[in-house]
Amino acid sequence: MLLIAKLGGEFFERIKQPIVLGELLGGIIIGNLVILGFLGFEPLKTNEVIGALAEIGVIILLFEVGLESNIGEMFEVGWSSLLVALAGVITPFFLGWGVAAYFLPGEDMLVHIFIGAALCATSIGITARVLKDLGRLRARESRVILGAAVIDDVLGLLILAVVVGAIEAAAIGTELTLAGVLLITVKAIAFLFVAVAAGRYLMPHVFRHAGRLAVRGIFLTLAISFCFLLAWLAAKVGLAPIVGAFAAGMVLDDSHYEPFRKKGEKTLEELIKPVGDLLVPLFFVLIGLKVDLRTFARPELLTFAVTLTIAAIIGKQICSLAVREKGINRLAVGVGMIPRGEVGLIFVGIGASLVLPNAQGVDEPVIDVATYGVVVFMVVFTTLITPPALKWAIENKGRAAR
Amino acid sequence: MLLIAKLGGEFFERIKQPIVLGELLGGIIIGNLVILGFLGFEPLKTNEVIGALAEIGVIILLFEVGLESNIGEMFEVGWSSLLVALAGVITPFFLGWGVAAYFLPGEDMLVHIFIGAALCATSIGITARVLKDLGRLRARESRVILGAAVIDDVLGLLILAVVVGAIEAAAIGTELTLAGVLLITVKAIAFLFVAVAAGRYLMPHVFRHAGRLAVRGIFLTLAISFCFLLAWLAAKVGLAPIVGAFAAGMVLDDSHYEPFRKKGEKTLEELIKPVGDLLVPLFFVLIGLKVDLRTFARPELLTFAVTLTIAAIIGKQICSLAVREKGINRLAVGVGMIPRGEVGLIFVGIGASLVLPNAQGVDEPVIDVATYGVVVFMVVFTTLITPPALKWAIENKGRAAR
Repeated sequence: MLLIAKLGGEFFERIKQPIVLGELLGGIIIGNLVILGFLGFEPLKTNEVIGALAEIGVIILLFEVGLESNIGEMFEVGWSSLLVALAGVITPFFLGWGVAAYFLPGEDMLVHIFIGAALCATSIGITARVLKDLGRLRARESRVILGAAVIDDVLGLLILAVVVGAIEAAAIGTELTLAGVLLITVKAIAFLFVAVAAGRYLMPHVFRHAGRLAVRGIFLTLAISFCFLLAWLAAKVGLAPIVGAFAAGMVLDDSHYEPFRKKGEKTLEELIKPVGDLLVPLFFVLIGLKVDLRTFARPELLTFAVTLTIAAIIGKQICSLAVREKGINRLAVGVGMIPRGEVGLIFVGIGASLVLPNAQGVDEPVIDVATYGVVVFMVVFTTLITPPALKWAIENKGRAAR
Repeated sequence: MLLIAKLGGEFFERIKQPIVLGELLGGIIIGNLVILGFLGFEPLKTNEVIGALAEIGVIILLFEVGLESNIGEMFEVGWSSLLVALAGVITPFFLGWGVAAYFLPGEDMLVHIFIGAALCATSIGITARVLKDLGRLRARESRVILGAAVIDDVLGLLILAVVVGAIEAAAIGTELTLAGVLLITVKAIAFLFVAVAAGRYLMPHVFRHAGRLAVRGIFLTLAISFCFLLAWLAAKVGLAPIVGAFAAGMVLDDSHYEPFRKKGEKTLEELIKPVGDLLVPLFFVLIGLKVDLRTFARPELLTFAVTLTIAAIIGKQICSLAVREKGINRLAVGVGMIPRGEVGLIFVGIGASLVLPNAQGVDEPVIDVATYGVVVFMVVFTTLITPPALKWAIENKGRAAR
């Protein structure tokens, strides 16, 4: 699986496409080649240990994303980003919900809501990469996009918490009341605030003491332990573990341990990189393995996938209307918010592990194999078109302005 | 578990003792504190995912040990090391077998043999560390000790292969014939030779091609994939996966990828270190967790543990008689071979997972909870006394010579 991930990633790196797509498509190809299926890839799809490793990989990925985003920056970009993010979450959510309701009339409303939720969160990594390649990372529209993408992640994780809460309530035969929704939302926000506050005040002390310790790997251990502690706490208060991992990453900051880092020691990001390099690709290959391409032999599912993708793209264009400052390249903001990457895939993975009783009272997965393929299609397509589209949007407008 | 490992390791680092013992004792303490048992450590002992992570940790550990040893060096130290290693494997093997037969008369002979096998392999890491601290790593006796410890590991893994083969045969009701023993030995040796030869000729080519690739983490992925490939192949030919991991490490050499390493990229050891930092301690804490200290409330088991430890110490002193060159500090060679570390613990872990039918035909683990504690006692004790004893042996003789 590691080799497949690296080969797929290498190929996509060469054709200047996001590496994560290479890993995903590598998994899809291997999972759908019957001949290679005989080589023993089939049992991997349901192997408990591989599943656990991939889950640890996602937790580490969200921790890394959190490490890259920074609370201070999030507040700095201010209202523009918040409005862009809100518009960019609400519109695709309802569009996705509507599309799902149209194509899956027989499914529970919670399934439609779940698919809508998978359309919410922008993948910050891909847009950041393109902006960086174009040397525009410090431009105003870039900061609005990146700020919005972070808020976006937080909002997406919030929606996930509420939807999962509703599904879990439905699975035991009760319904989630408005009070229940509010409770989950308050719990999630309170968790984030407590985690951030405690982390901001406690971790510098912890790192200061750790700086005096002599044993090898102490910073990495502390960081990873903190990440898993918050992931576990998040699960304890009913949130997804990735919310905790993201909060842990956002809380930890170079400034916390930099003063206590011994000379020649690596930074936290450098230390976690090799661990992520090994575990994160497992997750994407596993997602790919689980996609059954035969899904798209059914024309209505291909139509569903294309319609959902269009909803995902249009939904994010509303963002640009929310930009209040003048002189900002609105087109670039809208296009920059299109890619759904990691978070969409994480949602689909969680959905496949949740069950809801159907009309006959039999438990069925919220995201079945067909829907799984449809959502992955949307993620792949939105991610593929963003780099060229964003480049065009920025260069085109730039030329017009000159 | 990670935090326990690091705290235990830190404490032992401070009192200048091997870190691995700190991790092990941390696990023993936590596993035996009933109050903390309520905090949820009990299910960890049998958790499948933790078990798998610890096993991956051992595979990476043996890979790291292999990376540190080098085929060329192994041949260089020549006959002295080979004789020392042979004497140092055969004597403790039979002594341990005898002690086990005396204290566990009701058990199958294969159990006695297995306990004997756990006494074979010297832990190279601890001795190397002490010699390094004393600035004697390049002295002649040090090279004999380290060379012997490597051959020791190979011989120990061979014995493990044969004993496991015999136990597996017995578990299905057949007996291992002499031909069967020879077959396993030949398979193991052939596997090592083929692995080494193929690795030596193929890997430089693989690394040369990989050096042209652009994707991040490619060297680490290749190295880990090679390690797991050989571990899997070893399991396929009926050997322990760690044999494959060790062979993979021994085969890979800086010279293979150094020419293709991009400027500023880390070496293989540096890349694998953070992965090992996270996974290897899990293994030792897990071993510690599984030790039940109540074992030693039974006086006969405490006597068994002490006698086995004495057998382990005396068994390795025969080594010094095998040294042929004059002017070598024989006492230091004998003392330097005493510590049983990782490999002894790995053996005990494998033994606990193997089953043999007892007199009533019911399957029982080869290493039960009581024997487990006894062997861990031996490992802890031999490892604890080596640093001071070796220091004394070297300094004492050195002074006498002056």
